[in-house]
Amino acid sequence: MGLLKEGINEVIATTHCNAAPIGIINRNRIARMVLFHHSHTATNVERYGWIVANFIFDPVLYVRTAFEDLPESDLVPEMVEGRRMYRLPDAEAWIAYNAAVERKTDEALIVRLRPLKEMVADLRLHPVNRGFNSIIDATVHATRYVMTGDPWLRKLIDHHASLVRKCGGTREWEALDLLLGYLDRAETGDCGDTPDTPAAPDKQGRSRTSERFRMGELNFR
Amino acid sequence: MGLLKEGINEVIATTHCNAAPIGIINRNRIARMVLFHHSHTATNVERYGWIVANFIFDPVLYVRTAFEDLPESDLVPEMVEGRRMYRLPDAEAWIAYNAAVERKTDEALIVRLRPLKEMVADLRLHPVNRGFNSIIDATVHATRYVMTGDPWLRKLIDHHASLVRKCGGTREWEALDLLLGYLDRAETGDCGDTPDTPAAPDKQGRSRTSERFRMGELNFR
Repeated sequence: MGLLKEGINEVIATTHCNAAPIGIINRNRIARMVLFHHSHTATNVERYGWIVANFIFDPVLYVRTAFEDLPESDLVPEMVEGRRMYRLPDAEAWIAYNAAVERKTDEALIVRLRPLKEMVADLRLHPVNRGFNSIIDATVHATRYVMTGDPWLRKLIDHHASLVRKCGGTREWEALDLLLGYLDRAETGDCGDTPDTPAAPDKQGRSRTSERFRMGELNFR
Repeated sequence: MGLLKEGINEVIATTHCNAAPIGIINRNRIARMVLFHHSHTATNVERYGWIVANFIFDPVLYVRTAFEDLPESDLVPEMVEGRRMYRLPDAEAWIAYNAAVERKTDEALIVRLRPLKEMVADLRLHPVNRGFNSIIDATVHATRYVMTGDPWLRKLIDHHASLVRKCGGTREWEALDLLLGYLDRAETGDCGDTPDTPAAPDKQGRSRTSERFRMGELNFR
């Protein structure tokens, strides 16, 4: 697990035809994820037993995958130990994992990750940018806010939105517009043309928001 | 300016025998800094006309340079176009700039930066970590909080401290302890053995906090 850092690594996890921001908890050299029942990622992990952690630094992609599905054409297949997995084509690095459910709670699966293959494709410098960082935080808060309506979360989202405007670049501003659009639609109950917005669980009752980033909200220390 | 990203790049800027976290504003392909009068960095820029932007991802170093001086032995000299400059030895990349005061306000210098030399030494992957990001945000807020006592800033510091505990690794926890120690000493007015803590401007009236990170707080869009 040379690429993971200690603590919670917020990656974009790809599973069978799906991508979602997930926190990988790396403590005592063991990597785990917490996946909420009925999320796409949880369903895929139970069915297929693998995930790929994509290290990528595009703020728009974090927001997009938090709230909607990527088309399958945005993923590329990768054969790992005889299994066909999927990853993001523009990931700077990725780790393919065997994913085994370690235990279940009423709310979630605790999944243990065993690395099968690590790849560094193209590392780039990402200077510390509080605008990018605020997109990540605002997205985490937004996925919870659309379910709880907690005014403290809204205050944090507004705080981070203001930092994005001040410190971000064009790509962060684009991500912010997208995020605020999802929030508006969730607040007005208008799901628009997006089939999988937070307010609308899909036919199997799986919610896009239920799996999103929740990891980062759990204390696994 | 290939290494800078659009927006505000929070780097550790080294000047003559000094290091401090500074935001470099990169808009419309022009790089600028805002430096508060009487800060070490402002004094050095006026006197020597150069800075080096160090890209480094050590949370402890961000906190430390925000509140105290590094010993000169923590910097290494670098000859750039015949001028002896200083940089951090462990920077993954750095840019040496000519720094010219473009204009002055009552409060600050607006400094235009012209890149002289860029160097990539050793890029590493830094997975998105909300603990690291929260150290940056908490440090920015702390440098203002020790001067204003604004309770909203204290609330943000506490919020980010909790994220550091949840999402960070050992190095982020170490940085948090250091930060909370500075805050305690500032709140109790006890400057301890540290000659240059926030509450105590040095003999020339220069304050460590006055130059710190303020950049990120100014709206330069």
